[in-house]
Amino acid sequence: MKKRIKEKAMNNFELKNPTKIIFGKDTIKKLSTEIPEKAKVLLLYGGGSIKKNGIYEQVKTALSNVEVVEFGGIPANPEYAILMDALQIIKEQDITFLLAVGGGSVIDGTKFLSSAALYKGDTPWDILTSNTPTKKGMPFGTVLTLPATGSEMNSGAVITRKETKEKLAMGGVGLFPVFSILDPLVIQSIPKRQLVNGITDAFTHVLEQYMTYPSGAYLQDRFAESILQTLIQIAPKVIEDPTNYTEASNFMWCCTMALNGLIQKGVPTDWAVHAIGHELTALYGIDHARTLAIIAPSHYTYNFEAKKEKLAQYAERVWNITEGTIEEKAHIAIEKTETFFNELGIDTKLSKYTNNYKGTAELISKRFTERGWLGLGEHKNLAPNDVEKIVTMAY
Amino acid sequence: MKKRIKEKAMNNFELKNPTKIIFGKDTIKKLSTEIPEKAKVLLLYGGGSIKKNGIYEQVKTALSNVEVVEFGGIPANPEYAILMDALQIIKEQDITFLLAVGGGSVIDGTKFLSSAALYKGDTPWDILTSNTPTKKGMPFGTVLTLPATGSEMNSGAVITRKETKEKLAMGGVGLFPVFSILDPLVIQSIPKRQLVNGITDAFTHVLEQYMTYPSGAYLQDRFAESILQTLIQIAPKVIEDPTNYTEASNFMWCCTMALNGLIQKGVPTDWAVHAIGHELTALYGIDHARTLAIIAPSHYTYNFEAKKEKLAQYAERVWNITEGTIEEKAHIAIEKTETFFNELGIDTKLSKYTNNYKGTAELISKRFTERGWLGLGEHKNLAPNDVEKIVTMAY
Repeated sequence: MKKRIKEKAMNNFELKNPTKIIFGKDTIKKLSTEIPEKAKVLLLYGGGSIKKNGIYEQVKTALSNVEVVEFGGIPANPEYAILMDALQIIKEQDITFLLAVGGGSVIDGTKFLSSAALYKGDTPWDILTSNTPTKKGMPFGTVLTLPATGSEMNSGAVITRKETKEKLAMGGVGLFPVFSILDPLVIQSIPKRQLVNGITDAFTHVLEQYMTYPSGAYLQDRFAESILQTLIQIAPKVIEDPTNYTEASNFMWCCTMALNGLIQKGVPTDWAVHAIGHELTALYGIDHARTLAIIAPSHYTYNFEAKKEKLAQYAERVWNITEGTIEEKAHIAIEKTETFFNELGIDTKLSKYTNNYKGTAELISKRFTERGWLGLGEHKNLAPNDVEKIVTMAY
Repeated sequence: MKKRIKEKAMNNFELKNPTKIIFGKDTIKKLSTEIPEKAKVLLLYGGGSIKKNGIYEQVKTALSNVEVVEFGGIPANPEYAILMDALQIIKEQDITFLLAVGGGSVIDGTKFLSSAALYKGDTPWDILTSNTPTKKGMPFGTVLTLPATGSEMNSGAVITRKETKEKLAMGGVGLFPVFSILDPLVIQSIPKRQLVNGITDAFTHVLEQYMTYPSGAYLQDRFAESILQTLIQIAPKVIEDPTNYTEASNFMWCCTMALNGLIQKGVPTDWAVHAIGHELTALYGIDHARTLAIIAPSHYTYNFEAKKEKLAQYAERVWNITEGTIEEKAHIAIEKTETFFNELGIDTKLSKYTNNYKGTAELISKRFTERGWLGLGEHKNLAPNDVEKIVTMAY
């Protein structure tokens, strides 16, 4: 009895997610009632696509009663140096509320600013290197323009520093958005490449929290499988016709639910695919989602013994593979996953993205060693040496 | 295109659930850090079972640093007159924080007190009859001792008034618990009858939010099915051995997720089974969960045409019925549901509970007419006349 409990009991957990989600058609106008009266707002956005697709105009109309300063140009993989310029504006102009209008990069950048705005230490870069959770940040809301990362309903962020080619994570209870507006109509004007990235990102988020070992968390498993099944169902339709509201709305809600904390509660999580993938983005500028699709199949193959029970469960419940041994089902599950990415148009080998891939495995392994990242994965037993082998398999 | 959107697009929704869930083994002691310092606490509980199973002692130990007044004796179906005694204590003793230690009845009663403590109107009964949402209540936390109603993570409550045999609902954003402690170890000492009621209650909660018509909310459907599948999986094991932590923890988490708002977002909901079931409790004192099991099969049979697509989907995905027409699958789904309740030991006919059942249908129909409840169900088209037929079918 004791043994069984030890092996597969749900972990203790805490769950508190105070973000208010406003979901649906034509909801951007609701901004007007969500921003605090008398706020001085810094409106943050990315490369300017919101000025072409009508979102900027909707936002500005909704904000007509508050004072707004703008800061555009936050790039994919939000860049520290650029964010420091925004931080200066926050301080100089006495900004009291941040509004991110964009995808995960703009929202993550805004989370960094939320933390940095109230940070008392020497340099805000320490927020990223010190691993200290942010208890209180400047309040911020989001208008999501690109479903993918789930950043709109969680308290984490990833920030890039170009000069050192580093990509580091931060977070804390103070970094949940006060509100997030999710209007699936924005999906109509998203380029196919980014739709595909969004689907892949959300899919891999679920896998990171699910593809470990059986842990007795039956409901969490089924919720994770629900998101995977729904993403598989909607993926081809959203890509073919992003104006299909039913498919688009499910896509958007899947992305949020994939990383708002719910499915990770009480279960072991992996996140090695992200840890390794971030390096590929930092080194070669490969789209985040694509780095995940490159690493995931190799990671699951390399760690087959540790993950085969969950791989087989995934094969059965998500891909309807009812025949074969656990091992056979598990192998098919990896193949199905890789095929799913490929059919979305995503290459799953590093050599398709760069000719300079040789030496990448050793380089990433060395970086992990230097940072002291000595135990990755759900068992915290993957050494830099293992990472080297996984990356090599992904060449 | 327009037609399709109209028929099956996800509804717009808002989601904000600020309750902090503390879930797991030996978590009751965490009370000590969740109650505000310098609070004056009214500890509310039910019939006293917590004094036999050790929970009372754990709570008192955790509360040793704050001032605590006690109020026990809140009955199943929390009774207005008794709660009014507690309200007097809150006012006389300058209570600042309420702590519910119990199941749905104690928590619902505490929600009424949270609202009534700050209510400015003539008589607190008006909170129930006026249908005005409570925007702000006295803060309260809960220690859940009986998984069933989901009240620990939502903002609704149902209160009974004995003298008028009425059972009325209330709620509002001000009535989310500040925190809820869910320790699955409490399940070990729950009598079988109440375990069975809890499973049935949670199962029916999901059905009320799911068994309507296809609405294009693919992810919400799959989440609902996940809870149903998990409840079916754990039910016999929890009843056989409530000390099995894995089964107990999944049972507890299912009950919370069944009614914390998540699965109802964006979808049509029914709730006719509850509306009718409450009358059976008010009239005959039948356990809440059992009234749902009495009404649900008749309700689904009576409204077969309107619900057959979802019944068939439920048959396929939850009960693995892969053969047959939509109608055939849908009929099997109703049978499977009734059998599930029966195998838990729950009778699904009113005549098994009372000899005085004749005239019940007419009486309930009359009450609904008097209250102006003229349109029940997801299409708001069930008249008192239909209710009369449904109840008659359940004799």
